[in-house]
Amino acid sequence: RDYHDPPPAPLLDMGELKQWSFYRASIAEFIATFLFLFFAVSTVVNYKEPNYTDQCSRVGYLGIACAYGGMIFVLVYCTSGISGGHLNPAVTFAMLVARKMSLIRAAAYMVAQCLGATLGVLFVFAFMYADEQQNSDGVVNVVSRNYSKGAGLGVEFVGTFVLVYTVFSATDPKRNARDSHVPVLAPLPIGFAVFVVHLATIPITGTGINPARSLATNLIYRGTAEAMDDLWIFWVGPFLGALAAAVYHKYILRAGAVKTLKSFRALGSFGSHPPV
Amino acid sequence: RDYHDPPPAPLLDMGELKQWSFYRASIAEFIATFLFLFFAVSTVVNYKEPNYTDQCSRVGYLGIACAYGGMIFVLVYCTSGISGGHLNPAVTFAMLVARKMSLIRAAAYMVAQCLGATLGVLFVFAFMYADEQQNSDGVVNVVSRNYSKGAGLGVEFVGTFVLVYTVFSATDPKRNARDSHVPVLAPLPIGFAVFVVHLATIPITGTGINPARSLATNLIYRGTAEAMDDLWIFWVGPFLGALAAAVYHKYILRAGAVKTLKSFRALGSFGSHPPV
Amino acid sequence: RDYHDPPPAPLLDMGELKQWSFYRASIAEFIATFLFLFFAVSTVVNYKEPNYTDQCSRVGYLGIACAYGGMIFVLVYCTSGISGGHLNPAVTFAMLVARKMSLIRAAAYMVAQCLGATLGVLFVFAFMYADEQQNSDGVVNVVSRNYSKGAGLGVEFVGTFVLVYTVFSATDPKRNARDSHVPVLAPLPIGFAVFVVHLATIPITGTGINPARSLATNLIYRGTAEAMDDLWIFWVGPFLGALAAAVYHKYILRAGAVKTLKSFRALGSFGSHPPV
Amino acid sequence: RDYHDPPPAPLLDMGELKQWSFYRASIAEFIATFLFLFFAVSTVVNYKEPNYTDQCSRVGYLGIACAYGGMIFVLVYCTSGISGGHLNPAVTFAMLVARKMSLIRAAAYMVAQCLGATLGVLFVFAFMYADEQQNSDGVVNVVSRNYSKGAGLGVEFVGTFVLVYTVFSATDPKRNARDSHVPVLAPLPIGFAVFVVHLATIPITGTGINPARSLATNLIYRGTAEAMDDLWIFWVGPFLGALAAAVYHKYILRAGAVKTLKSFRALGSFGSHPPV
Repeated sequence: RDYHDPPPAPLLDMGELKQWSFYRASIAEFIATFLFLFFAVSTVVNYKEPNYTDQCSRVGYLGIACAYGGMIFVLVYCTSGISGGHLNPAVTFAMLVARKMSLIRAAAYMVAQCLGATLGVLFVFAFMYADEQQNSDGVVNVVSRNYSKGAGLGVEFVGTFVLVYTVFSATDPKRNARDSHVPVLAPLPIGFAVFVVHLATIPITGTGINPARSLATNLIYRGTAEAMDDLWIFWVGPFLGALAAAVYHKYILRAGAVKTLKSFRALGSFGSHPPV
Repeated sequence: RDYHDPPPAPLLDMGELKQWSFYRASIAEFIATFLFLFFAVSTVVNYKEPNYTDQCSRVGYLGIACAYGGMIFVLVYCTSGISGGHLNPAVTFAMLVARKMSLIRAAAYMVAQCLGATLGVLFVFAFMYADEQQNSDGVVNVVSRNYSKGAGLGVEFVGTFVLVYTVFSATDPKRNARDSHVPVLAPLPIGFAVFVVHLATIPITGTGINPARSLATNLIYRGTAEAMDDLWIFWVGPFLGALAAAVYHKYILRAGAVKTLKSFRALGSFGSHPPV
Repeated sequence: RDYHDPPPAPLLDMGELKQWSFYRASIAEFIATFLFLFFAVSTVVNYKEPNYTDQCSRVGYLGIACAYGGMIFVLVYCTSGISGGHLNPAVTFAMLVARKMSLIRAAAYMVAQCLGATLGVLFVFAFMYADEQQNSDGVVNVVSRNYSKGAGLGVEFVGTFVLVYTVFSATDPKRNARDSHVPVLAPLPIGFAVFVVHLATIPITGTGINPARSLATNLIYRGTAEAMDDLWIFWVGPFLGALAAAVYHKYILRAGAVKTLKSFRALGSFGSHPPV
Repeated sequence: RDYHDPPPAPLLDMGELKQWSFYRASIAEFIATFLFLFFAVSTVVNYKEPNYTDQCSRVGYLGIACAYGGMIFVLVYCTSGISGGHLNPAVTFAMLVARKMSLIRAAAYMVAQCLGATLGVLFVFAFMYADEQQNSDGVVNVVSRNYSKGAGLGVEFVGTFVLVYTVFSATDPKRNARDSHVPVLAPLPIGFAVFVVHLATIPITGTGINPARSLATNLIYRGTAEAMDDLWIFWVGPFLGALAAAVYHKYILRAGAVKTLKSFRALGSFGSHPPV
């Protein structure tokens, strides 16, 4: 055992508010989430030819999945050294639950992410002439007609689970000890996780797995009341999926369960072999 | 020669059954194979537009290949430190043949993989409304009308051969000694191997190269008796391909053959230069 | 703090002109930019079937994005050890602003890049029979009819910002100290940044983010006066985006701002606690 | 200068013929080239829907490029430690010209590559029912109607140049000294180089840049005399491109030119400052 788990982060750490690194990290989350949504949603609004004359040239769902996954790879690579590179309130929530960041920092990140995402989508909306906006189906997150609301919630849950599971696997101190350069490589599997979840779930929910993304697109592009109605699915599903991944990583993979069991057994063994 | 081949794993090691790491690894295989099939088959059932109105937007065979290969990259990355990241009875079989794991552990992995795969496919089936299920062609593994059963078997054999060959190359102790961080990078070529085998063989067999995948999809989605009839191809082909890759790696690439030859020669040399 | 920022490069360093490495680097930029444009524009001129009979076989916008991003990954990998692997006047400009290269070297690179790009596009033009040239829409950089000139400028600004931000992140001495092999991995996120910017902005401006590319294609393939008219957008946008990324990296992420603030505070503190 | 260029390999080294590693390397080249062509050509024969009913589902040129590039990445990764992972007579020729291997070994590799490639294509041909063979356009290498033979030769020259340039960059001892893990990462840019060259040149020549591939496909699938007529282009172009890349790397990038120049100058300097 040649690694150390860092001590749990305090829930409230007022000292952070005096550090430039705290503000810098929040700014980095804001800028990166802005760039993420700007390029991803720009891809979505143009993913198909409006007039169906040359439809095969456009990037389609595969291009959308590449845009989301590719931007996450690039931006996590760029910001991981500054803020950890979350760009996603569900990831930040998982890090809070795992006691890897304080409540204050988590709140600041989530606000920065939601603001950055909204600004990014707003830029895409403002850049495009109004009469082209009808091409923007696929931007908002809604549950497809072929699936129930429950299925949509389940898909968001499992999609966020696999993303956060990858994040935990990539940033595990045990892994870092074994392979000293994992932090450098971590953004690649994280980006791929986002990519494959999009491939699978764009036709089901439009793929949220990021509450800031769903809030921003549904806020700016909502054409119907339905878009706003489904929004809770894209907050509850990802947060529950992130929570499940944190629990799975801590109690199954990092053997939290067996440690509890062992300390129990040790107690029993102490009881049965009492020192005289 | 600055590396050591680990000693062959015992076939039966009852001590494993008392270790948490044994159960943890089996759980990790179960969860990862569940996630693998859930996202891959979700992609397949939606790979094309049901009504052909906007068919070019969907991800097509290229997206299916990306889903299978991408999920394998992500999930092998996440689970390699826990269970080795097989997610495939053919890979587990190859590791057993190469004496890298005990028979007990191999059996537990295979059961976990088949259960996880079946549950993953079941979730996809249950999530989608029944009247959309006719869109699910391409989910099950059958030999295409343009190919004979023998060709299908051959394709499964060669496809699994290249996958297991990549796994052996990536996890070779000789390689680890030379390039200390190969384990970190191994999931990428393994994922790419799965990707390119899918590109080449989706139109031939739907691409099995993973008996747990074929069992699960054919079990849940079989519409015809034919699907069940072909299932043996997707167990025999991959197991034979895995066996061939293990033999090729051990006796050709790792020079097992020449060592046998040399010890034979040494014997002859001993006979011709006897000590007086 | 276990790293050193290298001292700022002198603006004028006549000694460089006597070094072979200066000429070698300029030649490498010339050859690499030639190869970049040759393969990228070859992909563009054939991205769709001219007669629409089998249009879905062609690579489409997704293939164009892969060609630009993939070539940048390969060529930055090949030339980073020789010239830094810019292949783009906007990147060279950012490096000049950040005082990482002299004015003389920056000027030589930019000339080499523009010459190489023009020669690369000229080869594509010369190779193809004249009656196929009408297929070459999408080669030149113009603002699409659905967007205003201002939006086109904004898109070029943000696209170059994310590219140069990635370049700075990948080559930061602080990062190098922490992860000793980042230079090896840097080309991958840089290539992906180019890829995703293309996915998002091909339908808007044809994607410039590289003034040498825009100059070369518009020079060789301009069919209309409009193509030449828009060219300023593809020089001003990228240079401003590169400048913004350099400022963002230096004053926010590398805490230049807080250092200035601290030295100001230190002064104030000095004033309020005067030595007696 | 913390690296050593290995001494030039002898042209004739009869001792090699007694080493198992020589035969093992040739076998590895044979098997890998077989696998390369088997999967790549399997992808090509099915890249489009024969009846145009659901053409968007098939992988198209993008999938073909992924198959060639992806297989090269995987197989170079698997065989680089055994044989260097050439899989291509043009790469082997470049290594011979650069004196990195003996003539005997180069000849053995080329024979193994051509045999492996032919067997791989033969398997694809034999597996598919005869009445489907008309779908196999795009398998053979011919110059497209839109381009002259000279353009085809030029495209093969430049395509092989960029591939061999990447191979030299990735295996440079200077680079290895600076970044100790480049050998591990080398297969990725090499695979990407193959990928992007295919994207750009499939519509022009079908993309050769590998004489063994062109020989095998044209031999097995030639339907017309034209296919055989063009074959010389796919041997001369790649060999000349490989030669140019070797010269460029040695005399420009590795400063062979300046060394010659310096030794000339040193002579002049000796003349002008004679020892008394």
